[in-house]
Amino acid sequence: MVDYPRRISTKYKRIEPLLEHHDADAYVHVGDCFDEVLTYLTRFNGPDRDYAFVYVNGTATLCPPDRFGQQAEREFPGDEVDMTRASERPPATERARTVLERNEMGDTLLLPATAKHRTVQSFREDGYNVVLTDAIDDIRRVKTNEERKLLQAVEFATQRGMARAETVLASATVDGGGLHWQGEPLTTEILRREVNAALARNGLDGAGNTVIGAGESCADLHYNGIDHIESGETVLLDLGPEGPHGYYGDLSRTFVVGEVGEWEQRAYGAVSDALDGAFDVFEDGAGQPASHVQDRVAEELAAYGFETGDVDVGMYHGAGHGIGSSLHERPFLSANEQLQTGHVVTIEPGVYDPSRGGVRLEDIVEITEDGYENYVQYPKEIVPEERTI
Amino acid sequence: MVDYPRRISTKYKRIEPLLEHHDADAYVHVGDCFDEVLTYLTRFNGPDRDYAFVYVNGTATLCPPDRFGQQAEREFPGDEVDMTRASERPPATERARTVLERNEMGDTLLLPATAKHRTVQSFREDGYNVVLTDAIDDIRRVKTNEERKLLQAVEFATQRGMARAETVLASATVDGGGLHWQGEPLTTEILRREVNAALARNGLDGAGNTVIGAGESCADLHYNGIDHIESGETVLLDLGPEGPHGYYGDLSRTFVVGEVGEWEQRAYGAVSDALDGAFDVFEDGAGQPASHVQDRVAEELAAYGFETGDVDVGMYHGAGHGIGSSLHERPFLSANEQLQTGHVVTIEPGVYDPSRGGVRLEDIVEITEDGYENYVQYPKEIVPEERTI
Repeated sequence: MVDYPRRISTKYKRIEPLLEHHDADAYVHVGDCFDEVLTYLTRFNGPDRDYAFVYVNGTATLCPPDRFGQQAEREFPGDEVDMTRASERPPATERARTVLERNEMGDTLLLPATAKHRTVQSFREDGYNVVLTDAIDDIRRVKTNEERKLLQAVEFATQRGMARAETVLASATVDGGGLHWQGEPLTTEILRREVNAALARNGLDGAGNTVIGAGESCADLHYNGIDHIESGETVLLDLGPEGPHGYYGDLSRTFVVGEVGEWEQRAYGAVSDALDGAFDVFEDGAGQPASHVQDRVAEELAAYGFETGDVDVGMYHGAGHGIGSSLHERPFLSANEQLQTGHVVTIEPGVYDPSRGGVRLEDIVEITEDGYENYVQYPKEIVPEERTI
Repeated sequence: MVDYPRRISTKYKRIEPLLEHHDADAYVHVGDCFDEVLTYLTRFNGPDRDYAFVYVNGTATLCPPDRFGQQAEREFPGDEVDMTRASERPPATERARTVLERNEMGDTLLLPATAKHRTVQSFREDGYNVVLTDAIDDIRRVKTNEERKLLQAVEFATQRGMARAETVLASATVDGGGLHWQGEPLTTEILRREVNAALARNGLDGAGNTVIGAGESCADLHYNGIDHIESGETVLLDLGPEGPHGYYGDLSRTFVVGEVGEWEQRAYGAVSDALDGAFDVFEDGAGQPASHVQDRVAEELAAYGFETGDVDVGMYHGAGHGIGSSLHERPFLSANEQLQTGHVVTIEPGVYDPSRGGVRLEDIVEITEDGYENYVQYPKEIVPEERTI
């Protein structure tokens, strides 16, 4: 059984420079369990209604919703959980204000750029000067030791999901062009359920991110429909499950059952070489622009005659993105950003032809001072085999 | 295999009275895949970055993010998908404005009360008069035929998850007080993974809502920790998985393996009677206040000596809530709201003693004109049995 840490901490000190930069006195974040930055800050698996996080004078406080106090105390790595009784509990914004009022401070609040209008309005009506910033996303970019270990564990378990898919494909039979498995036509939906069940047994949640395309639908980057899988066509699997504490895995592989055609072979070769080229660039480690990776991927694909950018055939997406408590976060490899020690990013070259199929291969790497570490040991073979991990 | 409809429609006409009431010309909603109202409006399983929905002059338009056009066309039941090419694509708010500018209309926009500050700001800077409302939540309350069938299918599959848990409990052995299963100590975490795998095989996603408590931790309403399960203590399972199109299931049962003690027996009896009492009230169908149900539950529990409200021992939560494309939505049974035909609500009495355990039983019912329909056929037995559904 894959084990995960029961608790994880947050480096609240990273909020300090943001406060200084904006000449602000406190950081306040109001949101619900669907807000991934709030989850990062609180490590609290709350409900679908508002709660609040306040950072002021070096103290991190969580104001949990009704009847979530016990859970908050179990999960929150900060300093204080506000345990106001349910019967006396005003809305989250008011409770945040109560925390602020206990402090000696100025009147400037820093809120995330994604803050709700009603939250901003409420603080302004109370006389606070509210400043919004998207720099809060920056503090998540460089992963701590704890986060890196957690991401490794989640990515390991994600590989178990892929192994289940590959095993099903390898044990499928071909009947008149179509694949059959356990006496039924094998569809992308059956494969998706098998993958999600394997992920669940390993403590992960498919989270609606188990993308499986077959043939033409591989060119649709987010295919979640039901296709009968055919012999000779590409089967593209991109798994992006959510694990404990809201940390994500991300892994793509592509298989062909039966005879591998010329296009499929060429596409797979191009994408494999693009991935190797990206690893060459990562060898140089931290300090270089992320766009070097994107450029190298484009070069390798071009050698096989595949275009990149806003095209209909070729590669029409970024080469990778940061991953952590969001599936997609900074740095984006297509952006003008520097790779830093402790960044964890996906690398996912792919080529697509909407008239026939698509190939994508994706690993996750951690950027180190003088190189990189690949979190993925999963083989890259176009013909599926039965696998146990 | 449980099958679900591939597409589901939305009654956009229900937006009209909201526009009229607020004297507004268009409804605009900007958000990402974590915004459940936006998912309801668009039926679009989008990514974790902003996209926009616009309803104006009887036409519903979706502006999907980069490279999600194909998926949007597959999923969106509205009138138009804005297919601006990726390379020319401005942020979601600007694209919504482009849609508005194609229309003859006044300058008043209706936005959800949860709108981001930057969205409101952006429209105001363009000279629009922006009105915020939480009435948009109202249009989801009464479920359509399609939604009711989908909720039934999701709740059926949820019962398969419960059957897996009950089967594991029934086949566990007792060794020195602790339960063992497949040669290992049986924990709430192992049980949770087994449940989530069964849900996944049936097309559902645990979604972080598989709450399992054992003994004392049953009193923590949202327990997601790891406890070794002991003989004689209550094992409380509350499954709230997310299914296709973002519709939720919700089902609670409580079991005791081994000898059932006096408190456990009394608590189970109280909760069973409370549930039966609630069904008596539902028999009267639509037109009555939801609080009648809450009151009846309290009465039944009181007969067994259990208090309700802001107490430490007894029942300290609402008796139920609407369910649909959110796990918790209106109507809330504890609120002063009228039950209407087509409401689908959970009914979930429970009693807890933090020093020993907790019992909760939960079904889902649809309110009809002159009664109710229970979506759950799952038995209510305190001693677990091996089950196949």
